[in-house]
Amino acid sequence: MKISILTMCPEMFGDYLRTHAVTRAAGLGLAEVEIIDIRDFAGGSYRHIDDSPFGGGRGLILRCQPVLDALESVRTEGCHTAALVPVGRPYQQADAHRLAGQDHLILICGHYEGMDARIYDHVDELISIGDYILTGGELAAMVVTDSVIRLRKGNLKAGSAEEESFENGLLEYPQYTQPSDFRGQTVPPVLLSGHHEKIRRWRLKESLRLTLRQRPDLLESRPLSPEESGLLEEIRAEDRAEAGK
Amino acid sequence: MKISILTMCPEMFGDYLRTHAVTRAAGLGLAEVEIIDIRDFAGGSYRHIDDSPFGGGRGLILRCQPVLDALESVRTEGCHTAALVPVGRPYQQADAHRLAGQDHLILICGHYEGMDARIYDHVDELISIGDYILTGGELAAMVVTDSVIRLRKGNLKAGSAEEESFENGLLEYPQYTQPSDFRGQTVPPVLLSGHHEKIRRWRLKESLRLTLRQRPDLLESRPLSPEESGLLEEIRAEDRAEAGK
Repeated sequence: MKISILTMCPEMFGDYLRTHAVTRAAGLGLAEVEIIDIRDFAGGSYRHIDDSPFGGGRGLILRCQPVLDALESVRTEGCHTAALVPVGRPYQQADAHRLAGQDHLILICGHYEGMDARIYDHVDELISIGDYILTGGELAAMVVTDSVIRLRKGNLKAGSAEEESFENGLLEYPQYTQPSDFRGQTVPPVLLSGHHEKIRRWRLKESLRLTLRQRPDLLESRPLSPEESGLLEEIRAEDRAEAGK
Repeated sequence: MKISILTMCPEMFGDYLRTHAVTRAAGLGLAEVEIIDIRDFAGGSYRHIDDSPFGGGRGLILRCQPVLDALESVRTEGCHTAALVPVGRPYQQADAHRLAGQDHLILICGHYEGMDARIYDHVDELISIGDYILTGGELAAMVVTDSVIRLRKGNLKAGSAEEESFENGLLEYPQYTQPSDFRGQTVPPVLLSGHHEKIRRWRLKESLRLTLRQRPDLLESRPLSPEESGLLEEIRAEDRAEAGK
């Protein structure tokens, strides 16, 4: 796939394009990332890329002309286009999977106080990476690109993504590595037991426990298997016993 | 304030540290960002920063020793510490405000398949910037840093943040700039009227309309003023009329 990123700040992407994740995906022919400088398209009687908002207010708004001319210059048949703006729909792992299936993804970075809303009519979707305000959409474009290219077929080892957080609707269980005793902090004994079934059950239980504690919202919308329901009941009983101490 | 970022990939931060947002905050004495290479602290009998997980599984887990030794090397009295990991609590604009009030913020970037969960006991909080998986926590650290330093007192022009998305619990109203007719796409006439009260009311209504369409979840938990309730009723009536056409 190709990912074209339209930005006012191309200089922000140099280090990102040199990361292992991006160069590896390019080397394997899985994803190519190109950066388009919106300023190269600033023309007409204005010659600048932003201007004051109609109706008054502070800050500068990204103009239609340079953005849309830049967009038209990279559009291909069947391409998928998105603008990275705070008013977008919240980006989630399912979106990363969906976008990873595109042949050509075009991302427009928002900037400053916003972009002219007429631009929205020219893109397939508006994306927000979270409920917070950034200086611009550049970091958001890197986040989307990173999440997408790692899911490209052939990039991840088979099965390695399946137990990650959000893939099965739960947070991932806690992981531990050498040494088993680090300055008095020990690893849960079951992980050293070599008993595969007990380890699987422990991991599922701790995954549920962590999700219940950190992200109860994820459990609300997720159907539970009989085993998961049983483990959640155990966790709740343990919490009650702990609270009663 | 000072923000210390602990990472395995310091080379990812060069361009970011040169951005206008970071250099301006440093120049004004509002925020200083330093990058700490976790690899510099890899010692002991392992000499590497990651290892296989106990209990089996794919991938490599960031070890306690280099991370915690790096953390101790930068800790200061009263500092606030956070690890950027998918199992963290969802980061929101209110968190950016909270962290912007710290004198010393230390961010630990997660990486690869995860970090040894014993590290979590040494930080004040776990932060996730969204429900998607990234190659590492580096982009997340830049996102948090960017959202925080722009809120430092003296960085934003007075009042300029108040109407941004999420600040008042709504998405921001659509913005438009020159020209008023761009290739047939026109600007809502009210914005050209010069009538301040009508513009204020239109913006509030469109802010509500956009939030209702893109992020109905934001409206569920938010109390509405009598004016906002009235405008929402107008929007719903317009939607019903539109659907009935």
